Amino acid sequence: MMTPERTVGRLSLYRRLLVAMRNRGTRHVFSHELASAAGVTAAQVRRDMMTVGCSGSPARGYDVPELIEHIGLFLDADEPEAVALVGVGNIGRAMMAYFEGRRPKLKMVAAFDQDGSKTNRVVHGCRCYPIEDMASVVDDRGIRVAMVAVPAEAAQDVADVLVRAGVRGLLNFAPVAIRVPEHVYVEDIDVTTSLEKVAFFARQKRAHKVSVS
Amino acid sequence: MMTPERTVGRLSLYRRLLVAMRNRGTRHVFSHELASAAGVTAAQVRRDMMTVGCSGSPARGYDVPELIEHIGLFLDADEPEAVALVGVGNIGRAMMAYFEGRRPKLKMVAAFDQDGSKTNRVVHGCRCYPIEDMASVVDDRGIRVAMVAVPAEAAQDVADVLVRAGVRGLLNFAPVAIRVPEHVYVEDIDVTTSLEKVAFFARQKRAHKVSVS
Repeated sequence: MMTPERTVGRLSLYRRLLVAMRNRGTRHVFSHELASAAGVTAAQVRRDMMTVGCSGSPARGYDVPELIEHIGLFLDADEPEAVALVGVGNIGRAMMAYFEGRRPKLKMVAAFDQDGSKTNRVVHGCRCYPIEDMASVVDDRGIRVAMVAVPAEAAQDVADVLVRAGVRGLLNFAPVAIRVPEHVYVEDIDVTTSLEKVAFFARQKRAHKVSVS
Repeated sequence: MMTPERTVGRLSLYRRLLVAMRNRGTRHVFSHELASAAGVTAAQVRRDMMTVGCSGSPARGYDVPELIEHIGLFLDADEPEAVALVGVGNIGRAMMAYFEGRRPKLKMVAAFDQDGSKTNRVVHGCRCYPIEDMASVVDDRGIRVAMVAVPAEAAQDVADVLVRAGVRGLLNFAPVAIRVPEHVYVEDIDVTTSLEKVAFFARQKRAHKVSVS
């Protein structure tokens, strides 16, 4: 049975919250405490923890290091997962810097750009190649996960090349729907749309507030 | 009546796709063409366009510049919206660079950080202030929209200060659920969770593929 997307997202979030707790010296956590930080119900936390094979004690809650380990066994590959980045612009560079050393199980191993001034060098520990080398590098290195951070017009072509070269999961920052075969998973992050939504609803809430006062 | 979140998100995406089409010299577009680029149905596009008061012609489709204008009248404030950024790390700096001059209706006017080496200077056209000045600057300038790009542990405190100072919409990059009063809108972007999901499902799809072959 395929694990639902939302479960995977919550487990990833729990883990980061738990690591932060552990780093502050917290050894045990109750489901309602983790639920509050994650913005879900305590019952949801308990169900998710059963998915990874953990149960808490009524008196002390869950053991934090044990939870972190079990979530890792469930979510992570045995070996570090090699990730490619296409598009070394503002978003792409931020992703390289952000992920450098942060998640040992996700390693950005190759970046690609069509701008020659950005290629044939190492940025944040990641080698940048000309875009023409994308198919061969992805294929040679067996890369299965890629981030697409190119303009909307280029995103579909880039995705097509990546999928043909063996990529099975795409994180897409381009503001366009990428079409992929059924055996490929796509997750979209669109910061402009998100910020425009925030600005729109912030205004509506102001208007609403004024109208009722 | 409150416009649904998804409608606002789609309108924002349509606009970016339409601007790209206009820049390539496209004058008219059929609903099914815009639908294909946005990853929705043609019927959905037609409904959304009715929301902004546009109808297409059966023979030629929609007028691209007219659509862009109508979506702008619907989505944008009359005046540019001032946006604050809290946290001038990798993600925060990328957002400053990304939004610089990109959306004339969303202007990043102030950034805040607790690291003194990042403050009292101008980065990507945006003044960076010490975190202690956040409440007064947000209040003085009437800022109603903010991006939160601080570590998870600091996000709730930052949000509390912003909301007390008058912020009504938050774009949250911290991997934690922020609690806000009902009159505040929050949108979350969590790149680590998104990438972990992509890696997880890319692996599942591989496993599935192997098991059926």
